[in-house]
Amino acid sequence: MSWPTPYVAVIFTTQRSADLEGYAEMAERMDELARQQPGFLGVESVSSSDRGITVSYWVDEEASQAWRTVAEHLLAQRLGVERWYDAYDLRVATVTRDHSFRRARGQTDP
Amino acid sequence: MSWPTPYVAVIFTTQRSADLEGYAEMAERMDELARQQPGFLGVESVSSSDRGITVSYWVDEEASQAWRTVAEHLLAQRLGVERWYDAYDLRVATVTRDHSFRRARGQTDP
Repeated sequence: MSWPTPYVAVIFTTQRSADLEGYAEMAERMDELARQQPGFLGVESVSSSDRGITVSYWVDEEASQAWRTVAEHLLAQRLGVERWYDAYDLRVATVTRDHSFRRARGQTDP
Repeated sequence: MSWPTPYVAVIFTTQRSADLEGYAEMAERMDELARQQPGFLGVESVSSSDRGITVSYWVDEEASQAWRTVAEHLLAQRLGVERWYDAYDLRVATVTRDHSFRRARGQTDP
């Protein structure tokens, strides 16, 4: 995924708690909702058993800020702090350069 | 982990190939080497079976660029493209705001 620079990356790294009731459903719902937000570009997310990194991409800071204040997202944030996360770090960054690599078909063959 | 803003985040998202010979050892070695680089702040990495997100943090772009050109790292990059990765995206971003949450002990108890 690549977009014209500059764009905004919100880097959200989490340490999950032992209480994950309702977490998976909410995560899925938030993914779905974020994609409908104005200025949404894309999202990348990887989880292991108890840690996660989600990076969402936005056209500008205004778009990323608007997503923070969506009512259902505010509820998710509250439950995250009350229940699902033992720790998280949230970082807002401006992407100035990017590049991608995609293997061509058969490129591994000699 | 938090540092005075602005600082630089290098967001590296990968899709791994089926050929992971030597990958784990190299990943460990790169982690070790990066930590010794001038201007290194920290690194966060999460992997699932075939995907990964690694975000490394640097005091400035000069520091992140210097890491790119370290000889052993250049070799790792070459092997990544030739062998270990089917796809990757690399993004260089300037972090302008961050905040963290750490659960206080007993905070989950009523």
